[in-house]
Amino acid sequence: MTKALTPIACCQPLAAPSLSEEELESTAALFKALSDPARVKIMNLLAQPRAPVCACEFEPALGLSQPTVSHHLKKLTEVGLLEREQRGKWAYFSLKRDAVDKLASVADLKGVCC
Amino acid sequence: MTKALTPIACCQPLAAPSLSEEELESTAALFKALSDPARVKIMNLLAQPRAPVCACEFEPALGLSQPTVSHHLKKLTEVGLLEREQRGKWAYFSLKRDAVDKLASVADLKGVCC
Repeated sequence: MTKALTPIACCQPLAAPSLSEEELESTAALFKALSDPARVKIMNLLAQPRAPVCACEFEPALGLSQPTVSHHLKKLTEVGLLEREQRGKWAYFSLKRDAVDKLASVADLKGVCC
Repeated sequence: MTKALTPIACCQPLAAPSLSEEELESTAALFKALSDPARVKIMNLLAQPRAPVCACEFEPALGLSQPTVSHHLKKLTEVGLLEREQRGKWAYFSLKRDAVDKLASVADLKGVCC
């Protein structure tokens, strides 16, 4: 789990005075995890009040096969955006509070430009 | 230019009640444009007070060849994040105010979770 949390844990805001190579890589990895319409939809579904959401619900919502859905959920979890909780047969997913705050702060360039 | 502005112009926040197929695609395209360490560095350089920045300054700053730098600048401009201004031989780039506001609002999930 520690490895999984690295990208989101380390990112500085885009407007930081300077970013290290590692921070550039991590920030790019964070955006890459979100660079797919199905993953944007997963984030959108998890931002609704009814989260956490069972993995089984994403399949009909996304119109994708179970392995594809699992792949997307894994990528978002690996980058630290989602929290995964096993309840019997199914895993349930929710947005991770730290990650959500970090994503907002990484992407916030207001006040520094333009 | 109208086509170039489409992605950033249309994106709803990730926490919107629902997102259309087009909005999912556009939001993913926005994140995809940022999913490369060199592009994150370009955004970081342009968030500093000295912007706009000459295209010629990115080559040494990024340690990349001129065609590669041009490719990254083009991708960021196409998605609507950058403004390009031709001054004689060189193009100068700056962050686009609308895009910066939109990026922050797309990525802001605070208050809706977790």
